[in-house]
Amino acid sequence: MTQVKAYSAASATSGLRPDTVERRAPGPHDVAIDIAFCGLCHSDVHTIRSEWGPAKYPLVPGHEIVGVVSRVGDSVEGFTVGQRVGVGCMVDSCRECDSCLEGFEQYCEAGNVGTYGAVDRRNGDVITQGGYSQGIVVDENYVVHIPEGMDPAAAAPLLCAGVTTYSPLRYLDVQEGDAIGVIGLGGLGHMGVKIAKALGATVTVFTTSPAKAPEALALGADTVVVSSDPAAMASAKGSLNAILDTVAAVHDLNPYLRTLARDGALIQLGLPSEKMPPVDPGQLIRRRLAYGGSLIGGIAETQEMLDFCAEHGIASDIEMVTAAELDQAYDRMVAGDVKYRFVLDVATL
Amino acid sequence: MTQVKAYSAASATSGLRPDTVERRAPGPHDVAIDIAFCGLCHSDVHTIRSEWGPAKYPLVPGHEIVGVVSRVGDSVEGFTVGQRVGVGCMVDSCRECDSCLEGFEQYCEAGNVGTYGAVDRRNGDVITQGGYSQGIVVDENYVVHIPEGMDPAAAAPLLCAGVTTYSPLRYLDVQEGDAIGVIGLGGLGHMGVKIAKALGATVTVFTTSPAKAPEALALGADTVVVSSDPAAMASAKGSLNAILDTVAAVHDLNPYLRTLARDGALIQLGLPSEKMPPVDPGQLIRRRLAYGGSLIGGIAETQEMLDFCAEHGIASDIEMVTAAELDQAYDRMVAGDVKYRFVLDVATL
Repeated sequence: MTQVKAYSAASATSGLRPDTVERRAPGPHDVAIDIAFCGLCHSDVHTIRSEWGPAKYPLVPGHEIVGVVSRVGDSVEGFTVGQRVGVGCMVDSCRECDSCLEGFEQYCEAGNVGTYGAVDRRNGDVITQGGYSQGIVVDENYVVHIPEGMDPAAAAPLLCAGVTTYSPLRYLDVQEGDAIGVIGLGGLGHMGVKIAKALGATVTVFTTSPAKAPEALALGADTVVVSSDPAAMASAKGSLNAILDTVAAVHDLNPYLRTLARDGALIQLGLPSEKMPPVDPGQLIRRRLAYGGSLIGGIAETQEMLDFCAEHGIASDIEMVTAAELDQAYDRMVAGDVKYRFVLDVATL
Repeated sequence: MTQVKAYSAASATSGLRPDTVERRAPGPHDVAIDIAFCGLCHSDVHTIRSEWGPAKYPLVPGHEIVGVVSRVGDSVEGFTVGQRVGVGCMVDSCRECDSCLEGFEQYCEAGNVGTYGAVDRRNGDVITQGGYSQGIVVDENYVVHIPEGMDPAAAAPLLCAGVTTYSPLRYLDVQEGDAIGVIGLGGLGHMGVKIAKALGATVTVFTTSPAKAPEALALGADTVVVSSDPAAMASAKGSLNAILDTVAAVHDLNPYLRTLARDGALIQLGLPSEKMPPVDPGQLIRRRLAYGGSLIGGIAETQEMLDFCAEHGIASDIEMVTAAELDQAYDRMVAGDVKYRFVLDVATL
């Protein structure tokens, strides 16, 4: 066992404070990683504040982890010491169900083992602790390579925000010339814009704040629609093949459904903690629409996404924060005051 | 112009009474049809009672029409006098939008012209009048052939109930061995069971009434789940690839979503007149599910469905009614007291 520095929450209201966590000695298939950067995800806030149900405290959040391999188990084949690697939202899954065998570990029928706050079934049922820490030990099957030349700090948010938007765009088989909408221009949204553009789509960003239009266009969006403007929403009617909804707050989806063309799909990626207003089935029926969801991505798909981003020169736009700034950063995330992802400099722990 | 006998409603509460309607003289592309049978669809009830918005009275309902060609226009190429033909839910569409050009006339961007109660844009903006009548005149592009050997009365409900279930099963590319659920065992539901079975699927019927289990099995269902029994619902958890929801009353979809496997879809076919409870986005996200809708089918697809049903020896299970019994039949439909579709014997008008 090794003890590493970390920042943890002691309760839903404690904020994040200096702490230490135990990391297991690497087993034969494990990779030990010295963490350099960890992205701050909205899920961290929801979980730490027990907004998605009671969290298991003390808890170290963080599942957008980039670091360097410090040690490998005897049977590890895919990684060597010194390589730059990443860990996303999962550190294990059952490896036996259809979803796991097909590379969709995120949909593991026994439940994937989250990078923090989950029962680590294969390792003594300890509660997993995340990436706001100096080091982590993860089975190599749940570790990915960070491509050469990619900025490691800007790569960190790809491990969650990147793959969460990449996966549904690929599942929907988005092609050159497709018209894609992105609701919300935060951590997920800005990655959705970049990845959809790199796939050859034309991109419409929906935002509640007209002030965000120049930013959206600068990120590559072709059109910006202010969603609170009924005339603007009407002008987009029937124009889109798919929409990624990255907003994790309660909102009415029906005005967005009207912007979908026949056979279009609205894919919800963020999970609000309160009930959403009902979707009008008449809209679904009259244009054969689908309202769906998508959860992060599989491990192989995460690697594919990283390679795709490297090939297209895409990374997250980030603002670096120190450990002491974490509480303030959380408040700013809730207020939507970040362009577009905070990344914790783990050296400041 | 020709005057034909019909049954119409004078108001939302009048019931159906003897009347006459004018049919236009067949134009060059028109087919005049002597109607023999017309199915009674739930849409007829909703529309006639102004439950989907104010209807245009007097109104003759009916869009599951089977008859014999009595006359054809000079330019008609696909039909000859004496052939047995059908007309479904549409008698026209714009013929220019992408949906029309791709054979999805039901999703016409200008709105398809319904067989009754719609403004007939190409014919002087008269309000279309449906199949509870002795005759109808329809452009040949919206007429289909009833295959040889198919019972014409039992074929009538295929024009709406048949294609409404066939179309989404084909759109979802249902294959041999797929597991399909059908919610509700009425006019649509019983066709859904038969068509899904003919496509090689295993079929689970969800019903609120345990008494319907033997009927469902007799229709070909492999499993019957009483949806009010939580244990039975739990036993079906994660088992289905797709569900056709044929219930047009308000109901909670979330228990049914739990019976879908990863990447499963619940397709709503019936449109309740009141708001449905919201679908839980967490379920959609955690198993990449889709909640969708589907509207009848295109004209070419309707012909394909008829040919498919003929090939597989499928038709609707019907109870014949006379014109004088229409009001009573409507009440029985609302009460769910029909196995499984009423068909009006037009000779009784």
